[in-house]
Amino acid sequence: MSRENDLMEKIVSLAKRRGFIFPTAEKYGGLGGFWDWGPLGVELKNNIKREWWKRFVQERRDVVGLDSAIVTNPEVWKKSGHIGGFADKLVECKYCHHRFKQEDIKESNQCPDCGKSVFEPARDFNLMFKTFVGPVEASTSVAYLRPETAQNIYVNFETIAQTSRLKVPFGIAQIGKAFRNEITPGNFVFRTREFEQMELEYFVNPKEDDRWFSYWVKETIKWFLDLGIKKENLREHEQAKDELAHYAKATVDVEYNWPFSTGAGDKGWAELMGVANRTDFDLKAHGLKYKDESGEFVPYVIEPSFGVERSALAFLLDAYDEVKGGRTTTTESNKEKEVVLHLHKSLAPIKVAVLPLSKKTDLAKVANDLYEAIRKNFISAYDDVASIGRRYRRQDEIGTPYCVTVDFESLNDKKVTVRDRDTMEQERVPMAELSKYLNHKLNEIL
Amino acid sequence: MSRENDLMEKIVSLAKRRGFIFPTAEKYGGLGGFWDWGPLGVELKNNIKREWWKRFVQERRDVVGLDSAIVTNPEVWKKSGHIGGFADKLVECKYCHHRFKQEDIKESNQCPDCGKSVFEPARDFNLMFKTFVGPVEASTSVAYLRPETAQNIYVNFETIAQTSRLKVPFGIAQIGKAFRNEITPGNFVFRTREFEQMELEYFVNPKEDDRWFSYWVKETIKWFLDLGIKKENLREHEQAKDELAHYAKATVDVEYNWPFSTGAGDKGWAELMGVANRTDFDLKAHGLKYKDESGEFVPYVIEPSFGVERSALAFLLDAYDEVKGGRTTTTESNKEKEVVLHLHKSLAPIKVAVLPLSKKTDLAKVANDLYEAIRKNFISAYDDVASIGRRYRRQDEIGTPYCVTVDFESLNDKKVTVRDRDTMEQERVPMAELSKYLNHKLNEIL
Repeated sequence: MSRENDLMEKIVSLAKRRGFIFPTAEKYGGLGGFWDWGPLGVELKNNIKREWWKRFVQERRDVVGLDSAIVTNPEVWKKSGHIGGFADKLVECKYCHHRFKQEDIKESNQCPDCGKSVFEPARDFNLMFKTFVGPVEASTSVAYLRPETAQNIYVNFETIAQTSRLKVPFGIAQIGKAFRNEITPGNFVFRTREFEQMELEYFVNPKEDDRWFSYWVKETIKWFLDLGIKKENLREHEQAKDELAHYAKATVDVEYNWPFSTGAGDKGWAELMGVANRTDFDLKAHGLKYKDESGEFVPYVIEPSFGVERSALAFLLDAYDEVKGGRTTTTESNKEKEVVLHLHKSLAPIKVAVLPLSKKTDLAKVANDLYEAIRKNFISAYDDVASIGRRYRRQDEIGTPYCVTVDFESLNDKKVTVRDRDTMEQERVPMAELSKYLNHKLNEIL
Repeated sequence: MSRENDLMEKIVSLAKRRGFIFPTAEKYGGLGGFWDWGPLGVELKNNIKREWWKRFVQERRDVVGLDSAIVTNPEVWKKSGHIGGFADKLVECKYCHHRFKQEDIKESNQCPDCGKSVFEPARDFNLMFKTFVGPVEASTSVAYLRPETAQNIYVNFETIAQTSRLKVPFGIAQIGKAFRNEITPGNFVFRTREFEQMELEYFVNPKEDDRWFSYWVKETIKWFLDLGIKKENLREHEQAKDELAHYAKATVDVEYNWPFSTGAGDKGWAELMGVANRTDFDLKAHGLKYKDESGEFVPYVIEPSFGVERSALAFLLDAYDEVKGGRTTTTESNKEKEVVLHLHKSLAPIKVAVLPLSKKTDLAKVANDLYEAIRKNFISAYDDVASIGRRYRRQDEIGTPYCVTVDFESLNDKKVTVRDRDTMEQERVPMAELSKYLNHKLNEIL
């Protein structure tokens, strides 16, 4: 696949046209940094979350899950340092009172909104969304939408260690929404104000932190590779001392080669996810500790932190391919550009499409019965509109791994044709064995 | 099961002790109406959501999913009527400015907080949580946390009908967080301020609304029954004219027989979920319509609306059972009260527990290998601490359907004992066939 400059535009267009991702409330002008995930998008997100949970919770004896509240007691954010420190430095226009990052006005030194050029000195503006809990709108009722899921994990550390009878090293994983009032959201769903995190806080003996840090960098990269991200589009970036967050001893950004510039770093290379050694900063901040046969200590935390939307974007970009004809059409004159989304089978929103070659009643009946059976096991589609070539293209474009064609011969030999999206191979499979066949094909990996 | 008065206390205690549900940030005094779901709780919630999605999206050709933003353009809430009308009438104390529902002060007419008795006249206070998007905290940047997922579905109605090529009747389903600044949250997770909804908006031709309304009432009740809720604890309550929301033509509350009084209705009977015929109110409010070969019209909406937390509470309460001895102990003196959670297999947080009879190396090795293999397919537990009777009790109490005991005979005959939580039957199963056996047992229903 060539990484054309317009790859991002193609994905944005495909995402909208086929129901992956829409701007939220577009009818009312949208809202910057907020997106709705449509019928295919929600399946993709669910699949990503399921694979993450399977790998990092279900298959591990040392990790358990958590689903904590988005709005919690604000003392959590005071102790964690977010109320004091989670801020962007902004300058405010003296005339229109709009606020900007210093670098966004420094060229012209004129307000991008009203054109004047007198600014208040730069001040910190907190990135947390504020709200009020209870019937009184007052400073005493202020609460925040969490800017990360991690803190809720720390606060539950002692309770979970006890109720789940866990001993260090062990981890607590969480998937859930987080909110950051970013001044400049952008690049489609790369940086949004509302997003879903998949975070693992792994608690280790401080003597073993380096070993576990390396371990988790490897494991997280492996997860992306196993789910089909191309090796050449991933790299490790170890943060230099001056890049590190104040609480971190070490951080590796797993970077993806995005087809756009994020303004930071090396051309398109920018953070896909990060692994941080957060030391004992957070547990100490909340006054938590741990005791086992080796004594009492405050564990160090190794944190692999993923974003669902950003991961989804990487999976979509990485899976995108264009072929000049030959897949669904054979005549020379029809050799149009064909789009194939080579999504990993586990991530594909729709697993199987049933395509009857005709709408005639007897054929439709057989195809319908097959579809009814298949969709009990897999998210499936039924499509009997337009030519078979066009229908293949529709499924290729959204990454459906298997198309099942029911033709007139099927009425006699009780077999159907199963087409593999990637190999293009077509196999004739007895209908009675189709469920078993698909089950085997779709579950063979991971 | 007797529905004792203290059933609720038992569930609250079990939920906390075993890691189902904790008050959020309890260390800092919690926050009223917000809860954290622990390691077992998140699995229970995930299972409920998965079963709902499977039944109402995956298995249906007429329903697709959506995952929209929690914070959206506020115009949505203006058009829907929420900014104007989604409010509680409250009176405010002239002295301490705290606010209350009229009925909470009418007995004494004294402020419950400061004891004074002079109040401002009752006024409307909106139940939506307010926040500010963007760098300026001003009226122009106000946005709201959605109080329901339904409106995001309506706003996407035309786009989804088009991209998914759907024709009325069809539905759009969504699972996601919603927030209501309830004045009096309570009864554990029955009424919370942050909660997760599972909503289906089913769009029908206005001529067919009554038929579809009845259909969806039946389907939703069937879902609860199929997942094990006892028939005698469910009933339909058809709302009378004066109970109906202004937009609704008809509403049926599916009520559960809760072991507490909700203050409304008939003793413990109160809403578990609801099905409403919302007519064309919402689509009209957003100026949306629909066209097919029968002409242009505004569809009616039939809405089955579930809460994940409230459903989880019903499943837990309904599954709770106490047995006086005889399950895990045989000697008379040991016949203590034993707790069994008869959760449906699909909902049980942990599907299989592997229990080696001894910690001796050779036995532990066999048990560990089994456990490694099992947890690739199912969330599983490994427990080698305490007597086998106590370990059975631990698993019974959290509803684990199958316990696999590895004993010394296993080393010879390569078989293990599988104990069924409900029937108490013990079956000797060859280790080589265990995965297949469990897979069959755990997937046979639903």
